[in-house]
Amino acid sequence: MLFRSTETRIRVRYAETDQMGVAYYANYLIWMEVARGELCKACGFNYSDMERDGVLMAVAEVNCRYKFPAQYDNEVSIRSWIEEANTRMVTIHYEMFAGERTLATGFTRHVYVSREMQRVRLPEKYWPMFGI
Amino acid sequence: MLFRSTETRIRVRYAETDQMGVAYYANYLIWMEVARGELCKACGFNYSDMERDGVLMAVAEVNCRYKFPAQYDNEVSIRSWIEEANTRMVTIHYEMFAGERTLATGFTRHVYVSREMQRVRLPEKYWPMFGI
Amino acid sequence: MLFRSTETRIRVRYAETDQMGVAYYANYLIWMEVARGELCKACGFNYSDMERDGVLMAVAEVNCRYKFPAQYDNEVSIRSWIEEANTRMVTIHYEMFAGERTLATGFTRHVYVSREMQRVRLPEKYWPMFGI
Amino acid sequence: MLFRSTETRIRVRYAETDQMGVAYYANYLIWMEVARGELCKACGFNYSDMERDGVLMAVAEVNCRYKFPAQYDNEVSIRSWIEEANTRMVTIHYEMFAGERTLATGFTRHVYVSREMQRVRLPEKYWPMFGI
Repeated sequence: MLFRSTETRIRVRYAETDQMGVAYYANYLIWMEVARGELCKACGFNYSDMERDGVLMAVAEVNCRYKFPAQYDNEVSIRSWIEEANTRMVTIHYEMFAGERTLATGFTRHVYVSREMQRVRLPEKYWPMFGI
Repeated sequence: MLFRSTETRIRVRYAETDQMGVAYYANYLIWMEVARGELCKACGFNYSDMERDGVLMAVAEVNCRYKFPAQYDNEVSIRSWIEEANTRMVTIHYEMFAGERTLATGFTRHVYVSREMQRVRLPEKYWPMFGI
Repeated sequence: MLFRSTETRIRVRYAETDQMGVAYYANYLIWMEVARGELCKACGFNYSDMERDGVLMAVAEVNCRYKFPAQYDNEVSIRSWIEEANTRMVTIHYEMFAGERTLATGFTRHVYVSREMQRVRLPEKYWPMFGI
Repeated sequence: MLFRSTETRIRVRYAETDQMGVAYYANYLIWMEVARGELCKACGFNYSDMERDGVLMAVAEVNCRYKFPAQYDNEVSIRSWIEEANTRMVTIHYEMFAGERTLATGFTRHVYVSREMQRVRLPEKYWPMFGI
């Protein structure tokens, strides 16, 4: 469903470049996180509130394929959507663009954990927001 | 061959933690990079010299599976090795540990590019170092 | 003059928090840099163009006083202005807010350098933009 | 007293460079933090234990003067010492070197706070460790 996808924009920071003259590869994961926070809002909740409820979305896996390097001051659009969700885990996909050009695609897979990092089921109140 | 693998140690920095109280997921990619630099040395060259030769190892793909969270001040060992190399690309695998416990496993796939980010073949002098 | 000041907004990223549950102190310097890039634009140039002209603004000193901690997802406003500029150096001041509350104040002092990190004079075309 | 000073070594990471080809300025604050953690150990405690005691060393001010740029793979030595300490705050100074060359000098000033970010007095058991 459309409300479980979103588009976020960030601008590449000087801090994010490296001596190759392009954005360092780990920063794409930070941009995914920025998009993920916006995606939560698009789904109807703030991730901080979920944490206050004692539920954390711990990252279990990340994958990123780099197609074209992002450069300082580029505006990067990140399209993100929930690819699959159940009461145990959620998979989010990402596509990053500068203008028409695809910079990278990837996904993160998350499990729900308690403050003590024990796996928990997603509380029922979040099911409709995740499309479960 | 054994010389194309190495073990690197880092200590988790406070800067690398997040409000979950554990190391933020993008930092594992930075630790991979630290290991990769050491792996280059174990293979017989400094990555900076390779760059001075005009050859850069651009990241084409990264994958990381997170098993157990690293915490502030943990000593993390990163075992890394060349899984596959040819004159066009190289794949490096990583296993990260705190003591006996596996924290994460992953890989990076790199293509060789020029300063202008055009794909190039690995210069012949590096072939034996990559086991080609 | 008013055009040599600007206001920039960033949103605190999860990556920027640490296990204290607030934004890690080094990130304020990154926010200063984001503000500085916007300030350059407000002054009439893109910092990347200046670099293409072979002039880099190397940081000679930074100072930051932390008043109140920024938290995840806070919207932070950064007011920045050129406090003093001559053909050898420029000093930029910053005030950061979340709503009405002051989070931090600080300054950066920059010298102009060449690609080879040798000190140079600011090219004349930039003088009016810096109010010199 | 000598035990309230220490020397720490880090190696500049690729992630820490920017498109100027040198270490990005905010990273020096991270290196200060690494040195500070070692300094705590030299003083007789682990900073994590202090946090478990409910006492956090929040940064109130930082200053850094940059003399010479650190480059990728440089080994940087950070000399740090307690310049001044009382039951309300502590000031730590830092000198960073690559070989004989001074890269930067700076200081951080910290106040002690509770988990809830309220200012507290340093517990008496830490006084001898801070030379109070």
